[in-house]
Amino acid sequence: MAEERALATVTCTAPVNIAVIKYWGKRDDDLILPINSSLSVTLHQDQLKTTTTAAASRDFLEDRLWLNGEEADVGHPRLQACLREVRRLARKRRGGSAEDAVALSLSYKIHIATENNFPTAAGLASSAAGYACLVSALARLYGVEGELSEVARRGSGSACRSMLGGFVQWQRGERPDGRDSLAHQVAPETHWPELRVLVLVVSGEKKQVGSTVGMQTSVDTSPLLKRSPKGCGAVGVPELGVTATRLPRQHRAEVVVPERLALMIRHIRERDFEGFGQLTMQDSNQFHATCLDTFPPIFYLNDLSRHIIALAHRFNAHHGRTKVPAGRADPTGLPVCRGAVVPHQIPVSPSIPPQVAYTFDAGPNAVIFTLADTVAEFVEVVRRSFPPAANGDQFVRGLPVGSASLPQELLAAVVPEPVPGAIRYILHTKPGPGPQLVDDPSQHLLGADGLPRRCA
Amino acid sequence: MAEERALATVTCTAPVNIAVIKYWGKRDDDLILPINSSLSVTLHQDQLKTTTTAAASRDFLEDRLWLNGEEADVGHPRLQACLREVRRLARKRRGGSAEDAVALSLSYKIHIATENNFPTAAGLASSAAGYACLVSALARLYGVEGELSEVARRGSGSACRSMLGGFVQWQRGERPDGRDSLAHQVAPETHWPELRVLVLVVSGEKKQVGSTVGMQTSVDTSPLLKRSPKGCGAVGVPELGVTATRLPRQHRAEVVVPERLALMIRHIRERDFEGFGQLTMQDSNQFHATCLDTFPPIFYLNDLSRHIIALAHRFNAHHGRTKVPAGRADPTGLPVCRGAVVPHQIPVSPSIPPQVAYTFDAGPNAVIFTLADTVAEFVEVVRRSFPPAANGDQFVRGLPVGSASLPQELLAAVVPEPVPGAIRYILHTKPGPGPQLVDDPSQHLLGADGLPRRCA
Repeated sequence: MAEERALATVTCTAPVNIAVIKYWGKRDDDLILPINSSLSVTLHQDQLKTTTTAAASRDFLEDRLWLNGEEADVGHPRLQACLREVRRLARKRRGGSAEDAVALSLSYKIHIATENNFPTAAGLASSAAGYACLVSALARLYGVEGELSEVARRGSGSACRSMLGGFVQWQRGERPDGRDSLAHQVAPETHWPELRVLVLVVSGEKKQVGSTVGMQTSVDTSPLLKRSPKGCGAVGVPELGVTATRLPRQHRAEVVVPERLALMIRHIRERDFEGFGQLTMQDSNQFHATCLDTFPPIFYLNDLSRHIIALAHRFNAHHGRTKVPAGRADPTGLPVCRGAVVPHQIPVSPSIPPQVAYTFDAGPNAVIFTLADTVAEFVEVVRRSFPPAANGDQFVRGLPVGSASLPQELLAAVVPEPVPGAIRYILHTKPGPGPQLVDDPSQHLLGADGLPRRCA
Repeated sequence: MAEERALATVTCTAPVNIAVIKYWGKRDDDLILPINSSLSVTLHQDQLKTTTTAAASRDFLEDRLWLNGEEADVGHPRLQACLREVRRLARKRRGGSAEDAVALSLSYKIHIATENNFPTAAGLASSAAGYACLVSALARLYGVEGELSEVARRGSGSACRSMLGGFVQWQRGERPDGRDSLAHQVAPETHWPELRVLVLVVSGEKKQVGSTVGMQTSVDTSPLLKRSPKGCGAVGVPELGVTATRLPRQHRAEVVVPERLALMIRHIRERDFEGFGQLTMQDSNQFHATCLDTFPPIFYLNDLSRHIIALAHRFNAHHGRTKVPAGRADPTGLPVCRGAVVPHQIPVSPSIPPQVAYTFDAGPNAVIFTLADTVAEFVEVVRRSFPPAANGDQFVRGLPVGSASLPQELLAAVVPEPVPGAIRYILHTKPGPGPQLVDDPSQHLLGADGLPRRCA
């Protein structure tokens, strides 16, 4: 693709994805093979994207890497794995024959610059977008085409899902070498035009436990998730009347996820928001339950997450027109104010059709799925629940959001005591396409000298 | 036992118990039969107890009940179930023969008064102590002896464990009629003289979701816990390469708990605090994970619980003399202060022998198990971490606690930014005996007129 010249430069962008059936736990740490399949929605790059420029030149003395303008260690094993794999595919494509005059030399050193337009490592899948973008740019640079999700997976598991737009499944695969652990598209981004995504950004801080360390600890220690080193089997204790039976240990991976994945695909194909939303919330909760069952426990949800979860359930219950018996407790355990027209203590039934659905990854931000005609109302509910600090920042960003006035009944039923400033801003986006090549050379992050044009 | 006279009065006390293998989920709501066995430590009544006086008289016009001095509904189905069962046993004991002249008439109306010396419904197992006490008092009143845990179970599942002292197992049983779902003592309260219990009382508020409603929702909706109405089985989805296999659904009850119960009994018999403590923490975490996997999710842990959990793990890690690689995250995800002698970011390994072990029930209070020689130091750590508000209240209550000065290294490693006033007080107690008969008539809660002596 790139021609043999002093400096070959390629720039790509790649999207973030949000899993609705969560990936948590590897069966092979080196190849990054998951213990269960997962499914995600690729978010639109107009709102969230990584941009990566890769350049190669015979004049470069060493491989170099810049992350958000700061030079970083290019020797990271996962980055090196991606580089090695793309070069291997390039070599394979060239058939091992003599040098192709127009192909870039695989021995040249490379420079890589990458930037996110969103906070890094805050549970916004930055490594997914980052490695998807890196692999896309490197593949273009070396003229490699075809299946690349396997390469992106070597950088970060969920990166393989960012190699495609729309609704994407990462199939766990069966082979020990991981050749069948690939992403494929369940439906394109145009499939469900009404689907909207609201990212509630609660903090730009880095998360405390990286997902790599966290999920390994979960696999090692969570009885709801883990592989038993002794294989399957319960300990028989005849004196206690316990019957010894051989039972599977990877409960979530072996029992729960296969069912959920099939259901989720059906909901997406049928554009069934009720099914999609409920299963999304349930799988988010189970992922965090698995983290809590890890030892020592991992907490990604905090009291604010709990507030947001309760808000979503109250909003859904209100629209579900549930009648509320007096004195029933709010199942989310949240403090609520009294004396409202419709009580806050809502016996939220699992069968209430959701209008909004939350999901939380390994970070503090909440992601809300909803349909276009609910966005304005729910955004207003969030604004009333977490009144923005008057610091001039725009509270609602991304796609335009219409105005909505909330009926008093809805306010009374759904909005608890406001928590000012708890949410920094809301990003309104929707499903979007996979990685893109940036044609405009002025958009390269590296200049003609192969060095970053801008510094952070 | 009680003689036929104008007024027969009996007063008993009964203890609180704290489960170390948790009970969560019923297989029969009416008979209160659990889906898994559980195991608890009975706490000493010198610190936490319920007192109940039951009186019967031919002169009483109706059954009446007073809870903490306030009259309450005596028609509660569970209270009525206990009353009915005790009377049935009394009748059985009397062999269905003609009236025994010395036995109290079973047709007399009764008055019951009950008081806790601790906050009601705050996750301190008040219903367990309450029903154990009620059943003990009624049994004495009617001269019933022998196995009574089955009766107490009908009031509140965990009440059956409060019918015995020390270390108590509630065996789930197999029979549909619940006759084999009984408590029995694993070891008496004298078995482990060094074991201590610290109750960190964080709030006197009532919990938001009662455990009866909560556990039913969990059984209905948590895939990690629930019974499938269709029985076992995963949905086969050939197009996705999912192999359909029939697998058990009650993962925690069928797989995890039987192993843990056997292990826990061994740890208790061997007085192995390391094993006991670690398993206690793990089972508490799994119980709360199950609550989170419930839909809608139930949260009993909040940010303060998370602080306490992190504190315990840091304390254990410090005493485990773990060397800390720089830059590793604290797995509990807690914010910690920087620049300390020993960094706060502790890669807490599951293999670190615990000095303290936390457990949380369906409420905000934390219960800490430790050994006598660790109490003073850990209490000081708690005092430093959650400096008491200077309101004259006693911060440490119950058994005496010696003073401890903390080494600077320990303070730096373990105590995060203090959170003043977050913990109201610490109650220091230890394992204790089962229900007791109060011989001193001056301790009766009902006077000679059958009415409460004191009002709240």
